[in-house]
Amino acid sequence: MSDIKYSFGLWTVQWQGVDPFGEATRPHLAAADAIRKLAELGASAYTFHDNDVWPITATEAERQAAIDSIKAAGEETGMVCEMVTTNTFSHPVFKAGAFTSNDRNVRRYGLRKILKQVDLGAELGATTFVMWGGREGMEYSNSKDLGTAHARYAEGIDTVAAYIKSKGYNMRVALEPKPNEPRGDIFLPTIGHAIALINTLDNGDIVGLNPETGHEQMAGLNYTHGLALAMYCDKLFHIDLNGQNGPRYDQDLVHGHGNLLDSFFTVDLLENGSPNGTIKPYVGYRHFDYKPSRTEWTDGIWESARANMDTYELLAAKSKAYRADAAVQAAFDKAGLLDSSTTLAEGESFESFMAEADPNIEELGQRHEGLVWLQQLAVKHLIG
Amino acid sequence: MSDIKYSFGLWTVQWQGVDPFGEATRPHLAAADAIRKLAELGASAYTFHDNDVWPITATEAERQAAIDSIKAAGEETGMVCEMVTTNTFSHPVFKAGAFTSNDRNVRRYGLRKILKQVDLGAELGATTFVMWGGREGMEYSNSKDLGTAHARYAEGIDTVAAYIKSKGYNMRVALEPKPNEPRGDIFLPTIGHAIALINTLDNGDIVGLNPETGHEQMAGLNYTHGLALAMYCDKLFHIDLNGQNGPRYDQDLVHGHGNLLDSFFTVDLLENGSPNGTIKPYVGYRHFDYKPSRTEWTDGIWESARANMDTYELLAAKSKAYRADAAVQAAFDKAGLLDSSTTLAEGESFESFMAEADPNIEELGQRHEGLVWLQQLAVKHLIG
Amino acid sequence: MSDIKYSFGLWTVQWQGVDPFGEATRPHLAAADAIRKLAELGASAYTFHDNDVWPITATEAERQAAIDSIKAAGEETGMVCEMVTTNTFSHPVFKAGAFTSNDRNVRRYGLRKILKQVDLGAELGATTFVMWGGREGMEYSNSKDLGTAHARYAEGIDTVAAYIKSKGYNMRVALEPKPNEPRGDIFLPTIGHAIALINTLDNGDIVGLNPETGHEQMAGLNYTHGLALAMYCDKLFHIDLNGQNGPRYDQDLVHGHGNLLDSFFTVDLLENGSPNGTIKPYVGYRHFDYKPSRTEWTDGIWESARANMDTYELLAAKSKAYRADAAVQAAFDKAGLLDSSTTLAEGESFESFMAEADPNIEELGQRHEGLVWLQQLAVKHLIG
Amino acid sequence: MSDIKYSFGLWTVQWQGVDPFGEATRPHLAAADAIRKLAELGASAYTFHDNDVWPITATEAERQAAIDSIKAAGEETGMVCEMVTTNTFSHPVFKAGAFTSNDRNVRRYGLRKILKQVDLGAELGATTFVMWGGREGMEYSNSKDLGTAHARYAEGIDTVAAYIKSKGYNMRVALEPKPNEPRGDIFLPTIGHAIALINTLDNGDIVGLNPETGHEQMAGLNYTHGLALAMYCDKLFHIDLNGQNGPRYDQDLVHGHGNLLDSFFTVDLLENGSPNGTIKPYVGYRHFDYKPSRTEWTDGIWESARANMDTYELLAAKSKAYRADAAVQAAFDKAGLLDSSTTLAEGESFESFMAEADPNIEELGQRHEGLVWLQQLAVKHLIG
Repeated sequence: MSDIKYSFGLWTVQWQGVDPFGEATRPHLAAADAIRKLAELGASAYTFHDNDVWPITATEAERQAAIDSIKAAGEETGMVCEMVTTNTFSHPVFKAGAFTSNDRNVRRYGLRKILKQVDLGAELGATTFVMWGGREGMEYSNSKDLGTAHARYAEGIDTVAAYIKSKGYNMRVALEPKPNEPRGDIFLPTIGHAIALINTLDNGDIVGLNPETGHEQMAGLNYTHGLALAMYCDKLFHIDLNGQNGPRYDQDLVHGHGNLLDSFFTVDLLENGSPNGTIKPYVGYRHFDYKPSRTEWTDGIWESARANMDTYELLAAKSKAYRADAAVQAAFDKAGLLDSSTTLAEGESFESFMAEADPNIEELGQRHEGLVWLQQLAVKHLIG
Repeated sequence: MSDIKYSFGLWTVQWQGVDPFGEATRPHLAAADAIRKLAELGASAYTFHDNDVWPITATEAERQAAIDSIKAAGEETGMVCEMVTTNTFSHPVFKAGAFTSNDRNVRRYGLRKILKQVDLGAELGATTFVMWGGREGMEYSNSKDLGTAHARYAEGIDTVAAYIKSKGYNMRVALEPKPNEPRGDIFLPTIGHAIALINTLDNGDIVGLNPETGHEQMAGLNYTHGLALAMYCDKLFHIDLNGQNGPRYDQDLVHGHGNLLDSFFTVDLLENGSPNGTIKPYVGYRHFDYKPSRTEWTDGIWESARANMDTYELLAAKSKAYRADAAVQAAFDKAGLLDSSTTLAEGESFESFMAEADPNIEELGQRHEGLVWLQQLAVKHLIG
Repeated sequence: MSDIKYSFGLWTVQWQGVDPFGEATRPHLAAADAIRKLAELGASAYTFHDNDVWPITATEAERQAAIDSIKAAGEETGMVCEMVTTNTFSHPVFKAGAFTSNDRNVRRYGLRKILKQVDLGAELGATTFVMWGGREGMEYSNSKDLGTAHARYAEGIDTVAAYIKSKGYNMRVALEPKPNEPRGDIFLPTIGHAIALINTLDNGDIVGLNPETGHEQMAGLNYTHGLALAMYCDKLFHIDLNGQNGPRYDQDLVHGHGNLLDSFFTVDLLENGSPNGTIKPYVGYRHFDYKPSRTEWTDGIWESARANMDTYELLAAKSKAYRADAAVQAAFDKAGLLDSSTTLAEGESFESFMAEADPNIEELGQRHEGLVWLQQLAVKHLIG
Repeated sequence: MSDIKYSFGLWTVQWQGVDPFGEATRPHLAAADAIRKLAELGASAYTFHDNDVWPITATEAERQAAIDSIKAAGEETGMVCEMVTTNTFSHPVFKAGAFTSNDRNVRRYGLRKILKQVDLGAELGATTFVMWGGREGMEYSNSKDLGTAHARYAEGIDTVAAYIKSKGYNMRVALEPKPNEPRGDIFLPTIGHAIALINTLDNGDIVGLNPETGHEQMAGLNYTHGLALAMYCDKLFHIDLNGQNGPRYDQDLVHGHGNLLDSFFTVDLLENGSPNGTIKPYVGYRHFDYKPSRTEWTDGIWESARANMDTYELLAAKSKAYRADAAVQAAFDKAGLLDSSTTLAEGESFESFMAEADPNIEELGQRHEGLVWLQQLAVKHLIG
């Protein structure tokens, strides 16, 4: 393996296969065991929701024992906790949302649950706090006041960021957008919406994104483009890699087992940055948020976990060869990709610009950038 | 009719029915004739792309004659020009984009074409300048440098806004997001992405949104939710109403001939604001951007134009009755919609907040907000 | 209420709210109690999966006691059992399918489970046996042999039909298509695919369809069109009405709470047949397969059940008025809808047909059928 | 290159780039020139619509001259005409359909246009006649009588098949399903629907399918599964390969430039049949129906045409290696794929079957078929 660092959510390998039409197909897997096994497979870090490790009804002693167990597993294996997050979606109390619930008692309980997990994350050394508001939405417009709901969502996020600052934690918040499921329509459905809301916050400087491959693809959006916007806005704080086959239920397949061609471009962007260097390579764990298919017995948990890393390794190596290929660089150049010039010259006046004669647009319309061929070069590197 | 003011893009009624598989089914309609006929039907304003009125190859004299013709029609009918926009998508010169073209000559030509239309819009009294970057995208990741493309898109928009300020025009820019078609993936695919980019601009204060019903729905997103986010961010500068049946090609149906239930909630939000008043009613023209179906001969152009306004009138009246209904208000109250309280009290300290005891979450999980019934009340008002 | 007969699946009101990200939000509801309450609300019949009434692990005595309880509730309320179906999707044994499992032991167990329920259905007087093969599919092509899987699916269905015939039951089989969820891709994804497979069966004469509104819409297909094809092929044996917002997870909303305009056309077709009478009105229960939203406490179960019937009643009344409207009939006539002529005359020879002169196609291309206006008449009837 | 035979529609390379928002970006390409150039690139055959070669308004002499030009190009290059089809979608006369138009004059004209092209196809040696009814649908339910429309569609197809038989042509009909675009909803939206209608025909024995990759994927369906159903029903008469990114407008990308993983499984099925041999390899031309992206100048036409064949060659070679790999065969065996046993034994009675004891379902639910690992083997063969 390369020196790329991989990270997994504990809930991924812990998933027992409960889906809308079926019961668990696999036994419970203790968090500490998950950490140990992921370490064996080559992962460097783990992440978790509070209730991946202890039940929501746990006593303080039970909670502490559970925390101690993962600490021990971490020390034993060298696995670090790089990110934590809070479950504000499973229990009925959150059935209509946490931060955007119409009930203030729910909102306050949810916020406190989150802040407790922030404290724990800081204690464990996590530098990212992810927030996926899976229940923050609705099936029916006017189930919530759409203005108040956005205001409360913003208040909640801002409060978490303010709390982190007040404690002096070395931690940033990363929002995870999703268009729908389990709610009919979820607030902050895409990377764009999340950045838009972040820009309204007082403490938005430490709030960014944790975009998930499949979530953007559920809206038919190009995940790599979404990552690029987040990187352009300096908001790519964390990443959730997986696989999906377009608009349908959230599949959480192995990364590369869905839209393989887009996975290649995602890895190409993360590993190499954009072709002319305007976007820099991604720094941070390559984090997987997937589900071992419900058809699998426990062997399949580890086969699928490994498949995520194996595929990433393959894609990363392919992307390096693609960028190193002189034919690809020549095609980049022909397409005009290596140029990062601005449209106006520095200091150019509107007067002189507007006075400039128009070009011959018929001729200009006939230029050939060779974009299909450039794509074919990528395909050939990928499968050649 | 109510005193709601309706506006139409000239290109809507001018559409001749050319689609990816078919030729024009209707004759050319002169812009001035479109204005006159829309006035007869009850519209108050019109909007246009430069090349709706004169061809891209027009001489300056031809262009001026065309402008004079619409000015005359406007004076004759009282129709005002409330918005203008520029066609940077039809001609081959823009085949790979205008602001994000890899070719600087194209970018400069496109920018100049846009600024000329800004001047004309100001002259005609338009207070909104819409920008739909239909070609600003790509079919293949790495057809453009994703960092440079976003930077150039931002530069282009910012330059237009700076130009408007430099001229002292009473005009704001409104971006129109779209996820795909005619490009495989278009930059600024949703309301969220557009707001995110606006927040990076120097002159973003006069840049907002012109969200189109069908464009958000092509990504499977809830249009009314998107409007609410734009309104929450004070960025709903203009609106494009039409109809669509989910993710597929851009249908541009009559507003209400697609997702009728969402059209009701859209109109409810625009006319009445959000239930507790956090979002105020929309001020501005109710603008239609639709296409008279290709099956229609010229009669159908006007029947469909009228259908947009008739349906809006019906929906607006229904929404008023819905809000005035005591049963609806009671259901709002039961659901908790009328409350706009914050989650933390003013000045509440983290210490005291964290020390608060958790509520009984089992009990809290059993509350009944009556959300399905509230939806049913909306349905009954709509079709009852 | 009208004299329309409504039927509900017991699993609908029994749904406790378990979804991919959340626990049950409501207590268990006994089948007999569901029958009683649905009767109170005005339903005429119920339908059920075996494991809606007893657990898969029930002893024979437990099973019989459960059956007795629903029989008693039926006798007490007059509710009849019009359809039964079998759960071959919840238990891990079916994780990779029942009829199409690669494991013969699973296939045989699944088939026997189904035939037992056929027997019970016959005993209870059900005339339809529904088969939804929710696990008959796969996430990864080559998880099953695609030829063998279809052959086994056909064998399974054919065997059920043969069994019914061998027993002399007054019962027909109705297949329920679905494109995906819980499997990545489900076999027989649409109405069309199911009819195609039925046509390969020996006993296909008693095998038809039970199309569900949302399932077709998850593939972006027009549900009303699908019903029409099924009716044209004499294969609409049963119906599952509900609501959905296009391609995404299976929402199972109240009928009318999704694509309302299509719900109107569905009801119009079921109640009135097609405009010129080529398709006759639907005979059979109006059966709902929906889920009371997870946000609801038990009140919401019954509010939502009632909403299905109330909305159907409204739509049925609207559709009657629409058909009775002289303006609508005139618009039908103008569009050419009332004519059911064939293209060739009876006995017309190819020679004379080919020798006929072509019409003036320019002129013919300018005809105006008034299709947008006809749609607007439907919208006005619906919301006017 | 291998000895696989490739075929192209002339309209593919002739496409000039007109789309809903843009003009032609490339000059007209004469049909004969297209044939010559495709031959140079390695194609073996061509296919065409009548109006790819002569305009709909051509005189008989013009038509004959055009036909002579392609015959000459065919003789010169050895390219054969393997399939023909008719354009019943571009001209306004077909704006509301051909076979399903409400206007009998249109239906008769359309049918005659089709039969003329059948004659020509027979003359040129084409053995397949494709019918894509792009305008056979509607935007608004009740724009056509849904019963009569299906009856007329069936009559039209049946008449074409009867005509072929009456003439004794060595030709079969292949229907091409598509869910939408250019109509809101097209009849026969999927492979399944088309087979369903075929089964109602008198002459259905010579009517099958021409499924297009992107068309099935526009409905979110698995193309490879669709092919398998068509092959299972002996209805895969022809094939249209291209690329698409899920539900959105019809992209017609190069095959492999969309869902690459599914393209691999498609090629695997076509080249190798299903793993246990139940489905045999496809016999017939590998036919591409794609569009050279509008961004391309004429060079890009040929670069993209070549990319289709190059990618197919790569995928075919990969699929051979995948099938030849002992690890893959072992994984097939473990998953149970090599077995094609029926569920019931031959002659098994219902009595003995029903009397059989149930297996231990808990144990059976714990089996591990290794499906994710099998998928990973495919991915590794594809990109390794």
